[in-house]
Amino acid sequence: MGRITVRRRVTRITVGEQSSRREDVLAVEEPLEIRVGGRALAITMRTPGHDFDLAAGFLVSEGVIWHGQQFGAARYCAGATVEGENTYNVLDIAMAPGVAAPDPSLERNFYTTSSCGLCGKASIDAVRTLSKYAVADDPLQVTGSLLASFPTILRAHQDVFEKTGGLHAAALFDGSTGRMLVLREDVGRHNAVDKVIGWALKEDLLPLRGTVLMVSGRASFELTQKASMAGIPLLAAVSAPSSLAVELASEIGLTVVGFLRGASMVVYSADHRVTDDSLSAAPAGVHAPAASA
Amino acid sequence: MGRITVRRRVTRITVGEQSSRREDVLAVEEPLEIRVGGRALAITMRTPGHDFDLAAGFLVSEGVIWHGQQFGAARYCAGATVEGENTYNVLDIAMAPGVAAPDPSLERNFYTTSSCGLCGKASIDAVRTLSKYAVADDPLQVTGSLLASFPTILRAHQDVFEKTGGLHAAALFDGSTGRMLVLREDVGRHNAVDKVIGWALKEDLLPLRGTVLMVSGRASFELTQKASMAGIPLLAAVSAPSSLAVELASEIGLTVVGFLRGASMVVYSADHRVTDDSLSAAPAGVHAPAASA
Repeated sequence: MGRITVRRRVTRITVGEQSSRREDVLAVEEPLEIRVGGRALAITMRTPGHDFDLAAGFLVSEGVIWHGQQFGAARYCAGATVEGENTYNVLDIAMAPGVAAPDPSLERNFYTTSSCGLCGKASIDAVRTLSKYAVADDPLQVTGSLLASFPTILRAHQDVFEKTGGLHAAALFDGSTGRMLVLREDVGRHNAVDKVIGWALKEDLLPLRGTVLMVSGRASFELTQKASMAGIPLLAAVSAPSSLAVELASEIGLTVVGFLRGASMVVYSADHRVTDDSLSAAPAGVHAPAASA
Repeated sequence: MGRITVRRRVTRITVGEQSSRREDVLAVEEPLEIRVGGRALAITMRTPGHDFDLAAGFLVSEGVIWHGQQFGAARYCAGATVEGENTYNVLDIAMAPGVAAPDPSLERNFYTTSSCGLCGKASIDAVRTLSKYAVADDPLQVTGSLLASFPTILRAHQDVFEKTGGLHAAALFDGSTGRMLVLREDVGRHNAVDKVIGWALKEDLLPLRGTVLMVSGRASFELTQKASMAGIPLLAAVSAPSSLAVELASEIGLTVVGFLRGASMVVYSADHRVTDDSLSAAPAGVHAPAASA
């Protein structure tokens, strides 16, 4: 479709210098309406591309499906405009035979919470979606140095970010080999993660045991939840996590790593999965003050 | 409430060095349910604090109200938990007498779009909310050097970001004097802007003619729309704008400035409002190649 970036005339100003008109490249943001069986479920502002993966990942994140056999087919809604043109901005998904269509109240499933008790533990219960996949028992262990190699790989593959500075990225790594399995970019950080998860659904890789999900920004509650829904045991972020992201992660045994930059990182939950020179000889969850490997 | 940050034990790892356990400060993220007349309208994941402003700004952004007299009162829902505790996470708003409560379909008002035509101009029409305030005729003009001073001021006031690295900020500046009128921080960038707009509603400052809204991140379609709903003629961002943000801004005559860092910036739309040494003598909209002031 070639609509990931657009060119536009802009004015560049530097104080004390001559301003100039030039062409600039912008990241495309367009709405995608996701329908299931012809019924509108959600609209998300996204960067076009990998839309089928985005829709599939969205359905996994929302707990509607959790393995590839449940996803039937997806097609762009033809004749979308008055002129009968296909805009590639409306996607209709057919569930596999026998799979229930999502509850219409899913549009924002937490809107249906009538309980008033949104605080601490109750907050999490009110807004979380329960995952089919437990991550607490995932035996993944990664060394700090392997994790420290991920941001460079992520950045090297952020093609559109390089051009526009306007996109978030999410990438999935194999936790044993450190190999990057997939990377997706989007104006929306949640969309980038949904595109990764949708790709994994398509490849029949769910649950994503033994993998690391790396994101270019912060780790919010919603991103932690998405990792949980896909069975990913470790979420690593370049920036800070929020309190609720760490609370949920601690509760379900998901490892959250934040401020993953250069050689350093902070582990906020389930820290037995991250080993370094001083920790690698210690049993899971135990921190030997000065153990030698 | 004192819940803007929380302390948590974390593990800090630097490759090749001894890892350490220490306390870290996290930005709090908790859900806020916004009700109008007892009816749930939206849940947003936010940083507690300035919740009344957040709710008021949300209603302005969604086109429900546009001046302070329409906002009646707001109160936290008491007895929110089973134990009868007030969680401060559910807010009920009463509209002023005679003001219509929002359409329940507002929950996500673009969900109601049955049109399939989401593309380009049609996309904007499908997802935008029309503002009561025109910004095209706002005579605001700012020099590049005044704009260039804003990021430093913004950063100097980001108290919680300094501690946690986990918050977005939005600030409103007077476009003539460069004085900062208000700054708000939040885990959600949209919330930070809504808190600024809600504050302005409370202070009876809408429409915000002659002001500049500065945000710490990127300029998305939704942020441009929020600026438009509050009558703000100039949106400045530290990072990149999206294509749709610039399309909407061009259409309504709102100035979008991106990559505002150090002494330089890029003007994406309505660039007659930003003057510099070479532009200040030129009439609005005309770029004199080498004009002297």
